[in-house]
Amino acid sequence: MNRGIHIGMAERELETPVLVVDIDAMERNLARMMETLADSGLNLRPHLKTAKSPALAWKMIDAGAIGVCCAKLSEAEVMANAGIGDILLTSEVAGAGKFERLVALARRLPGFKAVVDSEHAIDGIAALAVQQGVTVNLLIEIDVNTGRSGVTSAADALRLANHIRDTAGVQLVGLHGYAGHAQIRPAEDREVLNPEAMEVLKEAVDVLEEHNHELTYLSGGGTGSSAIDAEAGVLNEVQAGSFLLMDTAYRDAGAPFENALSCLTTVISRPNETRAVCDAGQKTLSRDGGTPEVTGRSGVTYLRGSDEHGNLEVDPAALEAPLNVGDVVRVLPSHVCTTVNLHDVMVGVRDGIVEAIWPIEARGHVW
Amino acid sequence: MNRGIHIGMAERELETPVLVVDIDAMERNLARMMETLADSGLNLRPHLKTAKSPALAWKMIDAGAIGVCCAKLSEAEVMANAGIGDILLTSEVAGAGKFERLVALARRLPGFKAVVDSEHAIDGIAALAVQQGVTVNLLIEIDVNTGRSGVTSAADALRLANHIRDTAGVQLVGLHGYAGHAQIRPAEDREVLNPEAMEVLKEAVDVLEEHNHELTYLSGGGTGSSAIDAEAGVLNEVQAGSFLLMDTAYRDAGAPFENALSCLTTVISRPNETRAVCDAGQKTLSRDGGTPEVTGRSGVTYLRGSDEHGNLEVDPAALEAPLNVGDVVRVLPSHVCTTVNLHDVMVGVRDGIVEAIWPIEARGHVW
Repeated sequence: MNRGIHIGMAERELETPVLVVDIDAMERNLARMMETLADSGLNLRPHLKTAKSPALAWKMIDAGAIGVCCAKLSEAEVMANAGIGDILLTSEVAGAGKFERLVALARRLPGFKAVVDSEHAIDGIAALAVQQGVTVNLLIEIDVNTGRSGVTSAADALRLANHIRDTAGVQLVGLHGYAGHAQIRPAEDREVLNPEAMEVLKEAVDVLEEHNHELTYLSGGGTGSSAIDAEAGVLNEVQAGSFLLMDTAYRDAGAPFENALSCLTTVISRPNETRAVCDAGQKTLSRDGGTPEVTGRSGVTYLRGSDEHGNLEVDPAALEAPLNVGDVVRVLPSHVCTTVNLHDVMVGVRDGIVEAIWPIEARGHVW
Repeated sequence: MNRGIHIGMAERELETPVLVVDIDAMERNLARMMETLADSGLNLRPHLKTAKSPALAWKMIDAGAIGVCCAKLSEAEVMANAGIGDILLTSEVAGAGKFERLVALARRLPGFKAVVDSEHAIDGIAALAVQQGVTVNLLIEIDVNTGRSGVTSAADALRLANHIRDTAGVQLVGLHGYAGHAQIRPAEDREVLNPEAMEVLKEAVDVLEEHNHELTYLSGGGTGSSAIDAEAGVLNEVQAGSFLLMDTAYRDAGAPFENALSCLTTVISRPNETRAVCDAGQKTLSRDGGTPEVTGRSGVTYLRGSDEHGNLEVDPAALEAPLNVGDVVRVLPSHVCTTVNLHDVMVGVRDGIVEAIWPIEARGHVW
């Protein structure tokens, strides 16, 4: 058990490996996003699959976010328990237990909304909702060329919308069209893929509105597309999540936010001149988004994470100071979502001093 | 919160995604390993970075394992709290907090042992040990061509061994030489790489014994090499961990154990004829060891995990029955260690009935 973290301690005294958040950088990221969206006339509905922390969710709501997105029921339950009322569940669910939990959330939170893309889910949710005397708010998910979930045509969207209208216990409140394939990409790709994605969403909007379906929430967008999400004139809210803490994949794709999140790790082995091993492997720093990156120290490269070992390459000629066993190295995650998911807490630091300890309360709930 | 798991329920009623263990297969894996090692005259010291569960650790000890390995202090602390006394910590540690926790474990458990590969760690541990009136058991880690941690020559090993002999508060009890590079490989590679690795370890053993260092524990080996770990005549204990639950990477490398671990996941979206999405993405099934694999259902392939979505490819012609939203599909993990680390519990099943619920108590402790 790490017993050492407390407010007011020096960052350099933290036991490693540990995720630290540069609070100043995080606050600048949030201010920048709020400004961008205000200029565009879009709302922010941050996706909490990234930070998984009610404390950070509240920071974004306090800054003007109209609500939040959650990727799964367990996340939504954590956020509901933390007093957050306007939650959009962005993944479909299926199975009796899941429908029950979803309807239970709808009973607790009038602002709860969930995406659907099948009659199966609509009927499963509606049957329980009627029993319990609640009406569940639904958004139909449109596959905007991402090739994952969501209906694949405006005709399918209309079929589901009509089905929802004909079904007691559920009501259609909007469409969900997340262009996941168009986020972590170079600007030139994003500028082509996002408008194309919004075309697909627009077609569904048009067809549904022709048939008198009222669409209050047109939800999509993300960190990568946030600067251009307004251009197509379709969305009214943006689901960005990574912008707050950031990672190297989004930085390399040109997202205009700072790397606020890093991992401190200690050198535990220095077998020879060109090699070192640190205590942050792939159970600490995910590598699905690329290789994590040493920062603030020349001559040291993060090569590859074993389960619990981080393998570092050392260029002796480029070292400014010797790299010794016991030294602490700072590493930027390549993918913030899967990295945060591995940790129990993030530590908020300002001017080298621990100012906040944020439990990652919604991690560890697979369901 | 998933409220549904209880002993005696049917496996098919489990809420997904959930890790299930075929208890019969697991027991056969354990019996097979014990037999193999008994024939070889080697002890089993299973590595708990895989199962991370005290309950499964005790199953292996009850079957004859002489002790366990842990990858980090937090794992060792969990196992010590569960009453396990003979623990080998297989990663080096550094930093004042870590040395303190390591010496605290040594005070609690006379059978505690830790690997070192630097004077820095030896001195840090020894200083505290002397203060606290305890002698800490150390194994020197030898890099047996893995290219990670460990000293890289017998001369370095001797230097450290002599240093330990000259230092109060620590004593040398053995060598640690884990051939990590020679485990998940085709048999023809393993049969070359393992003997080469054992040659390196043997050289260190010989040099240290010439200098009258007594080496009680010669620890290494793993699931991939377990059948040939005895051949070189160097090791006296094997650190296999994955054999108990298994994954597709080890299966594909020809490890003679059954895939006892699988993940049940529900189809949540069925956008078109050839695509489906399930509720097990890469926060549920790691993909660092390759792509997880659908089993028991023809015509359905696990393509790729997004964060929370598992993307399935469907071959309509090969489907034996329609694949519908709400259907449960079984998936084999590609890498057991990083997959188990994502979950709170494993559910033990026999004959379709839940027989045990094993909390993965040592996950979620990054430190």
